[in-house]
Amino acid sequence: MPFRIVGMAWKELFMNPSKFLSPLLVFMALSIFFLNTTFAEEKDADTFRNNSLSTQTQACLGCHSRYTPGIVKDWLTSRHSKTTPTVAMEKSPLEKRISAESIPGELTKVVVGCYECHSRNAAGHQDNFDHMGFRINVVVTPNDCKTCHPVEAAQFLGSKKSMAYKNLMDNPVYRTLVDTVTGVRKIDNKVIPAAKPSEDTLRETCLGCHGTRVEAKGTKNLSVKIGDIVVPALTNWPNQGVGRVNPDGSSGTCSACHPRHGFLIEIARKPYTCSQCHHEPDVPAWDVYEESKHGNIYSSKGTTWDFNSVPWKLGVDFKAPTCSVCHNSLLVAPDGAVIMERSHNFGSRLWVRLFGLIYSHPQPKSGDTTIIKNKDGLPLPVTFGGEPASEYLIDMSEQEKRRDMISRICNGCHNADWIRGHFAKLNSTTKETDEMILAATKLVSRAWEKGIEDKTNPFDESIEQMWIRQWLFYSNSIRYASAMTGAPDYTAFKNGWWYLNENLQQMKDWMEFKKAKNKEKEKD
Amino acid sequence: MPFRIVGMAWKELFMNPSKFLSPLLVFMALSIFFLNTTFAEEKDADTFRNNSLSTQTQACLGCHSRYTPGIVKDWLTSRHSKTTPTVAMEKSPLEKRISAESIPGELTKVVVGCYECHSRNAAGHQDNFDHMGFRINVVVTPNDCKTCHPVEAAQFLGSKKSMAYKNLMDNPVYRTLVDTVTGVRKIDNKVIPAAKPSEDTLRETCLGCHGTRVEAKGTKNLSVKIGDIVVPALTNWPNQGVGRVNPDGSSGTCSACHPRHGFLIEIARKPYTCSQCHHEPDVPAWDVYEESKHGNIYSSKGTTWDFNSVPWKLGVDFKAPTCSVCHNSLLVAPDGAVIMERSHNFGSRLWVRLFGLIYSHPQPKSGDTTIIKNKDGLPLPVTFGGEPASEYLIDMSEQEKRRDMISRICNGCHNADWIRGHFAKLNSTTKETDEMILAATKLVSRAWEKGIEDKTNPFDESIEQMWIRQWLFYSNSIRYASAMTGAPDYTAFKNGWWYLNENLQQMKDWMEFKKAKNKEKEKD
Amino acid sequence: MPFRIVGMAWKELFMNPSKFLSPLLVFMALSIFFLNTTFAEEKDADTFRNNSLSTQTQACLGCHSRYTPGIVKDWLTSRHSKTTPTVAMEKSPLEKRISAESIPGELTKVVVGCYECHSRNAAGHQDNFDHMGFRINVVVTPNDCKTCHPVEAAQFLGSKKSMAYKNLMDNPVYRTLVDTVTGVRKIDNKVIPAAKPSEDTLRETCLGCHGTRVEAKGTKNLSVKIGDIVVPALTNWPNQGVGRVNPDGSSGTCSACHPRHGFLIEIARKPYTCSQCHHEPDVPAWDVYEESKHGNIYSSKGTTWDFNSVPWKLGVDFKAPTCSVCHNSLLVAPDGAVIMERSHNFGSRLWVRLFGLIYSHPQPKSGDTTIIKNKDGLPLPVTFGGEPASEYLIDMSEQEKRRDMISRICNGCHNADWIRGHFAKLNSTTKETDEMILAATKLVSRAWEKGIEDKTNPFDESIEQMWIRQWLFYSNSIRYASAMTGAPDYTAFKNGWWYLNENLQQMKDWMEFKKAKNKEKEKD
Repeated sequence: MPFRIVGMAWKELFMNPSKFLSPLLVFMALSIFFLNTTFAEEKDADTFRNNSLSTQTQACLGCHSRYTPGIVKDWLTSRHSKTTPTVAMEKSPLEKRISAESIPGELTKVVVGCYECHSRNAAGHQDNFDHMGFRINVVVTPNDCKTCHPVEAAQFLGSKKSMAYKNLMDNPVYRTLVDTVTGVRKIDNKVIPAAKPSEDTLRETCLGCHGTRVEAKGTKNLSVKIGDIVVPALTNWPNQGVGRVNPDGSSGTCSACHPRHGFLIEIARKPYTCSQCHHEPDVPAWDVYEESKHGNIYSSKGTTWDFNSVPWKLGVDFKAPTCSVCHNSLLVAPDGAVIMERSHNFGSRLWVRLFGLIYSHPQPKSGDTTIIKNKDGLPLPVTFGGEPASEYLIDMSEQEKRRDMISRICNGCHNADWIRGHFAKLNSTTKETDEMILAATKLVSRAWEKGIEDKTNPFDESIEQMWIRQWLFYSNSIRYASAMTGAPDYTAFKNGWWYLNENLQQMKDWMEFKKAKNKEKEKD
Repeated sequence: MPFRIVGMAWKELFMNPSKFLSPLLVFMALSIFFLNTTFAEEKDADTFRNNSLSTQTQACLGCHSRYTPGIVKDWLTSRHSKTTPTVAMEKSPLEKRISAESIPGELTKVVVGCYECHSRNAAGHQDNFDHMGFRINVVVTPNDCKTCHPVEAAQFLGSKKSMAYKNLMDNPVYRTLVDTVTGVRKIDNKVIPAAKPSEDTLRETCLGCHGTRVEAKGTKNLSVKIGDIVVPALTNWPNQGVGRVNPDGSSGTCSACHPRHGFLIEIARKPYTCSQCHHEPDVPAWDVYEESKHGNIYSSKGTTWDFNSVPWKLGVDFKAPTCSVCHNSLLVAPDGAVIMERSHNFGSRLWVRLFGLIYSHPQPKSGDTTIIKNKDGLPLPVTFGGEPASEYLIDMSEQEKRRDMISRICNGCHNADWIRGHFAKLNSTTKETDEMILAATKLVSRAWEKGIEDKTNPFDESIEQMWIRQWLFYSNSIRYASAMTGAPDYTAFKNGWWYLNENLQQMKDWMEFKKAKNKEKEKD
Repeated sequence: MPFRIVGMAWKELFMNPSKFLSPLLVFMALSIFFLNTTFAEEKDADTFRNNSLSTQTQACLGCHSRYTPGIVKDWLTSRHSKTTPTVAMEKSPLEKRISAESIPGELTKVVVGCYECHSRNAAGHQDNFDHMGFRINVVVTPNDCKTCHPVEAAQFLGSKKSMAYKNLMDNPVYRTLVDTVTGVRKIDNKVIPAAKPSEDTLRETCLGCHGTRVEAKGTKNLSVKIGDIVVPALTNWPNQGVGRVNPDGSSGTCSACHPRHGFLIEIARKPYTCSQCHHEPDVPAWDVYEESKHGNIYSSKGTTWDFNSVPWKLGVDFKAPTCSVCHNSLLVAPDGAVIMERSHNFGSRLWVRLFGLIYSHPQPKSGDTTIIKNKDGLPLPVTFGGEPASEYLIDMSEQEKRRDMISRICNGCHNADWIRGHFAKLNSTTKETDEMILAATKLVSRAWEKGIEDKTNPFDESIEQMWIRQWLFYSNSIRYASAMTGAPDYTAFKNGWWYLNENLQQMKDWMEFKKAKNKEKEKD
């Protein structure tokens, strides 16, 4: 088995680790690289030669253009592969895609290649390991990206998104919901006992979007094409959830929205990216956008728009908003005037939170929502009865400021009365859906009081599940559609008012069926 | 606050209204305009200069290219911004996009700009107001568009679509359904009392597609960037529903399908436009199209087709139908022979109505369906028992004529036997789904007879809601898929036969549960 | 009626049938053809002239470019219309799109036109008939396509797909499910009696994807534009289901994925093609792909990829997989090395079957699954209790071989540890969803034991239907999403874990309601 033998040779090299590059390894890698490119793809080779690649990145490319060529080809589409930070910093303030005031010297003159990212801040990375003579990290984190993008990283780190793991898993109420939804039940006689979900299923469901906790627990052997190698043993990996807890202790992942090695702003600006997580029935951003007039215009004409230009010019580069237009992009008017600054704190332009537990409420002040305590003593922004935990939420003046801010974007195409009419409708909808949730809450509360269902776990019995659907599915959907100016059929019938009302009827009937059944049993 | 001051200056100008243009205002607007363009975008400015803009439109553009630039940029993509009616009328009959035989003199030599549309028929517009010295209407209506497009306007005004508000809201049966679905319920002890929906929620749901009643109720002050202005106080605004009742008394809105200020035929011809309203679960045109072979071909190759050419050449401009191919576009064969005339009466090519209340039936003769009375005395085209109100519906010979008409389109790609086989299947499906609706009607009728549910409102209790889903969701979906040649999985499992049958079982069980519960209660 | 008269003339010609071409007919057809093209479209005429058309195909085009021009235009986009088999065979092995070692002489020098395909193997075709002097088949089958594509045809014929009709309709268990789901029920007093579905409804639902049985039952007259003609009377036609039983006795249809007359590999490679049948809720391949990161990248950037090149170059022609990348295309690395051979046996790269009845299990050895018998004596790969019928299923070593095979594709972009982590998650998910199915099976089994529901037909009562949804809808959806690396929100809430658990609760409650109702009845 020649592969195994080569593997053993690599292993011996690992026995003699060195902080400096092994000249032998670099030589071997570069040989493979140029051998590869000579016979294969001159164009890439030219790209490599003309660009300023670090010698380490050349070594990476030497092997990986053979062993995982898709990554390399993807990276070649990126700006990272074509620009050095020095050149990137020369752009005018609005055109700049890099926010650092200064860049570590070794990075300034080379394009942003494999090694530049995967070797950052090695000391803090549990997942740092010796790979073919190079100390690299498996996982690149916001803390690494911040080397060149500190403003974006800081905004993101202050957002709910970057804390999506913590906000879900460290909140005991949410955690109960998570466990109830995703745990495997085994029927035990007639009882359906509670269960804890497995890590794999959490990674596949909630934590697929919220992010997992990735830790390096020692190392392990791995058989690859060139033999056995030793790699960090990562828990809950792979995962690209937006609030991932990383092996360097940081939170979040940039590749949730800037996928893989192209890092294209174009992809992040298209609605498909957001729709990976914001989908029906609970957060149907994509579904209502698709049915809206904005979504129609995007679907019909979007292929002719420019999703790459920075700053993004309203009316010129795009004719209707995608998610990122309203939520985070830097926008300018056709004459170049700034309409809205860029933000990677995705809640920062929002005043009302449409899909919290259980009622709508003003946006929380902090991205960390585990700190909230309401009057029921629960870590929720609103009580079951509907009272907001106001001290943790932004005040009226901040709400108005933010509504005015987002109105500036609408105003790019719509007049002031139109915008006012739109947000008045959203206000009404928020209020009415909250009332419909309150109605369902009254029913489930009576079921608890009468002993028809057991409140110990408020999420695991049928009537409780109907109550959850009232807020998590139907009310959320209606509010989304209202906020995003469209999808009337969605809010009427798909996951909206039809179900809000049908669900109330079914809750009432189901309670009576259970009561009748219980009486029947008592008689036995 | 300099803006406020400028606002006051405008206000003073308003005190001295004039039917003639205020030279001062025009001067100011044009100054802003050219100042704007000089420093900003030469290209647009050239477009403006080379085109024949009315002086009023130049004034509009002067401000709005600064204050709502997205509208202006959108308009610049339109044919309206590039062609005068005189030039448009010189085209050959099939290529013409304008159907007027003569155009008012002041419109012939200028491109169709802001003022040309927003100043039409001012006398009839409740929403006409003095805006910076110009009398303009907020809302442009089919009655205004008819200046140049009288044939299209007339066809549209005869269609069910243009009467979508009236047909829904002025039909007491439908109205009860609307109110039941969208009203806010408050739990009052154990009862769920009836409720009337708010105007905002109606605008967000049913009337989002059907259109609202927009009326000007006096005026109001509005704070905008340049200060306070006075504008008409419009009810139920904004709204782009296809059957909107307008403040000039006309019905319908063209921008439901020709959105905003680009008016692109390309967008109207793409299925995303129709899908804004024709979506699952009740009218799933988009959903079944997407799953059909036609939809597959469109999704795979549509970006290479020509959606702008008039007439639209089958096999050349497009290779598979979108909604508009079958329902309303002017189609020619590759050799130029007319396959089908254009129609903006969207029912005019259809013989059977697949989603009426409650059973399928021949298309109604009139676009106004509130005039229908069936043998039960209800304003519905079919009785609850399944008998059609034939005198209001087209007869067999008209049905056959229309089927032959639409078959001509199919025949562009499919042979006569294929088409015959397709429509035979549709006939069978229509009949069978009607039978499945009748089965559900029998169950709900028994529930009414036995007092299990209360017929006063036939739409508000659980078994009634199941009955509604049988026709409104499941049967409709199956018929749509059948008519549109596809989506077998949709009709089997998504919203089709699976649910038709499961729903019957659940209705039966639910009735028995309710009966048992009632007996249990009686004993108490 | 001149058409009728012409029709009579044709008919008389039919009275004197001939195996040789009628020179008169050819002359007439060509006259029409060139007359047509002279005045209409020179470009097509040039194409026709420069290409090597058989005289028969020229005759077909002569009429059909007038009578069904869409087909002709579609064919003109195909490689078939531009290449002779001789030229196609000269390509290098990897670039070849034709797998025959030799081609019948009459086909080698002409492009692949109407007659070349529609006249193949006439003797075996029940649907062969005399059409304007030519013996042609209505239906072109895999047995005909195999003339030039024998390797693809043979692979396909060994697959479950080509036997999709048989596997569904000749398996008594599945057949019961089919009949129960799609039969029309008439309420008869209080009973909902069993019913058999109509052929039309089967064609519209299950057999829309699985394929119908198309037989020629004599002939029939058909009125067409040029008069009456006589054509074969085909049953269950039109239909393009992938496992269609054809009138030449063969199984399957190539146009299920290579639609109509363009036969574009581009369309077959795009996910919309697979999504015609693989859609939610039972086989939601499209739905989870759309929500996955792979789907996001495809939706965002796919219009810039090359879907036509053969072989298909990973990282160059495409940057993220579509269905066909993983399931059947010939893939090469950027340097030209083969990553994966082409296969038209769509199960051949798969080791685990995610949507069999009822539990997951290893892929069956044979494409014909009707031969399977499990320990319950049922033709299912697993017993109701969960035991696989292992002798009919591939063994562990074959499973590992296939997993390694598909891992090679993943490895184009992902490292070995990433892939390992991904498939470990899939394993866990498969196991857990099987456990959740077992829980539901226990509940339905108790309902059967206690006489709450009747096992005679295990698919037609409410609790049984809930049980079906547990495996057919919810578990399948979760497994699909797991296999396809994404759609966390889908597996959590859309059709996944939320419903797996809610459904168990509702089954339990429903059983108790039925029990209580039965007792109440007994007392009457």
